[in-house]
Amino acid sequence: MGSLPNTPQRLNTVEEYKSFVDKFDTFLLDLDGVLWHGSHVLDGVVDTVDFLRKNGKRLVFVTNNSTLSRANLVKKFERLGIQASEKDIFSSAFATAVYLRNILNFPADKRVYVVGESGIVDELNAVGIKTTGASDDNGIVMTHTDFGKIEQDPSIGAVVCGFDINLNYTKLAKAFTYLNNKEQGAHFILTNDDTTFPAPNGIYPGTGSLCASLITALKRKPLVMGKPNKPMLDCFFSNYHTDPSRTCMVGDRLDTDIDFGAQGGIATLMVLTGVSTEQEALDPEQPIKPTFIIQGFGELAKVKDA
Amino acid sequence: MGSLPNTPQRLNTVEEYKSFVDKFDTFLLDLDGVLWHGSHVLDGVVDTVDFLRKNGKRLVFVTNNSTLSRANLVKKFERLGIQASEKDIFSSAFATAVYLRNILNFPADKRVYVVGESGIVDELNAVGIKTTGASDDNGIVMTHTDFGKIEQDPSIGAVVCGFDINLNYTKLAKAFTYLNNKEQGAHFILTNDDTTFPAPNGIYPGTGSLCASLITALKRKPLVMGKPNKPMLDCFFSNYHTDPSRTCMVGDRLDTDIDFGAQGGIATLMVLTGVSTEQEALDPEQPIKPTFIIQGFGELAKVKDA
Repeated sequence: MGSLPNTPQRLNTVEEYKSFVDKFDTFLLDLDGVLWHGSHVLDGVVDTVDFLRKNGKRLVFVTNNSTLSRANLVKKFERLGIQASEKDIFSSAFATAVYLRNILNFPADKRVYVVGESGIVDELNAVGIKTTGASDDNGIVMTHTDFGKIEQDPSIGAVVCGFDINLNYTKLAKAFTYLNNKEQGAHFILTNDDTTFPAPNGIYPGTGSLCASLITALKRKPLVMGKPNKPMLDCFFSNYHTDPSRTCMVGDRLDTDIDFGAQGGIATLMVLTGVSTEQEALDPEQPIKPTFIIQGFGELAKVKDA
Repeated sequence: MGSLPNTPQRLNTVEEYKSFVDKFDTFLLDLDGVLWHGSHVLDGVVDTVDFLRKNGKRLVFVTNNSTLSRANLVKKFERLGIQASEKDIFSSAFATAVYLRNILNFPADKRVYVVGESGIVDELNAVGIKTTGASDDNGIVMTHTDFGKIEQDPSIGAVVCGFDINLNYTKLAKAFTYLNNKEQGAHFILTNDDTTFPAPNGIYPGTGSLCASLITALKRKPLVMGKPNKPMLDCFFSNYHTDPSRTCMVGDRLDTDIDFGAQGGIATLMVLTGVSTEQEALDPEQPIKPTFIIQGFGELAKVKDA
């Protein structure tokens, strides 16, 4: 949508909320920090979702989580009392499937070797792409005499890596072997590159850290799908065909959500119910600027009562 | 030993070999590419080892391999017909034990969490350092509901990471949890940072690649022990007390062996029976220069027949 203003517009009044809502047809929504914290849904969020949909707005929930298929993510939304269908969810695993199918025209006779969980396998299979690896290689432990036994597999057209709690050396060695064969030219795709993720008692190594092993061994950069990377937004538009000038990304983190929208040239709304603070957004040294700032996504429900 | 000549001296004649040998009391020897290729011992090597020892020279075999203890490496030497005792072998696992004991004065009431194989555990235990992790965590698979269950362990004073064919997410998550606790201040040590290693049918991800996961997640640099890093040579001198000006590193790779000696300020002999070529060594753009170049380590045996 061309040049965006460099100073974020702070939305404080119901009039400003209404004017903001009127500017857009589609809202891309980050989950944790925008809709909920862990399993606690934030104030006004259910009402805002309801209000926006009743006013004809399309809501798409955008997540870097690749371990669950959209079908399983829908169940999480249901548990938390937010209505969502598979079509309303845009996950990094689904985006990867869209990328392979729509953008790479992944050949029908090739397979994807997956270092990851069922979310990736289910989404790839759902668009007709055959997979191998993943849970098939869970618990397969190599010994030092096995190195000669890992062989090239010409059927592998891509290696897709996401978070995998069953990561093991066998998976790394296979993925490395397939990707290190330059003649075969297999694509190397990460669902996302978050280096850590939050859990109830602290943070843990995330997809970006697990995949650093392969990147280091291969000395080769993967295509990285998830926020804040542009391929995720390219895949979004290739799948949803919404008008970018009427699409707004809503998120709590400057370095992922807001950067994601900014890199893709769409408007962004930063909420203050998550990780990044207003002070960080307004810091003159901060290169990533949201278009709009609001206290919380739940605030927007106040428009319906005005 | 101060400034070394920038142009390598090519040793071609028996007189030059003799003059070279006379300059040194101790030779540090890389293994693969210098002594043998895989299980094939190179020409003249057994005779050269014999000749040098009979002339009062000390030979120390230097390896980044951390998976085997020196006791087990001795068995490999025996199988290949080269006589060696544990005292003649300086491995990255043993160097790490020397570093923790001699340089860090590792506290007696602390333990080391090991991501690695028995070589590290055996060498640490041999110098009286208690360990945990390693094979105890082989095959321990976490689930997504286990994240709350990994707890801080105040007894952990260091995390040592080497090659581990049984690497799994549990090990990474534990190592990350211990190292990410800044108050605890646990040391973070890699036995070596080779990104790949050669195997019979190709190369595979090595220690440096496996540990890239932790480095990426922690955003923290480890102390790296093995060649070409200087701590390995510091530990060598702290353990062997040889005269650096009478010590020469012999190796086939410019980027590991020769750089190792050069960084430590000792003389280096490059052999042409391994990875790096004479052309690479003489390239004006090449920043790493050996002091001497010889066709092969086995050449030196010719001195005894002269």
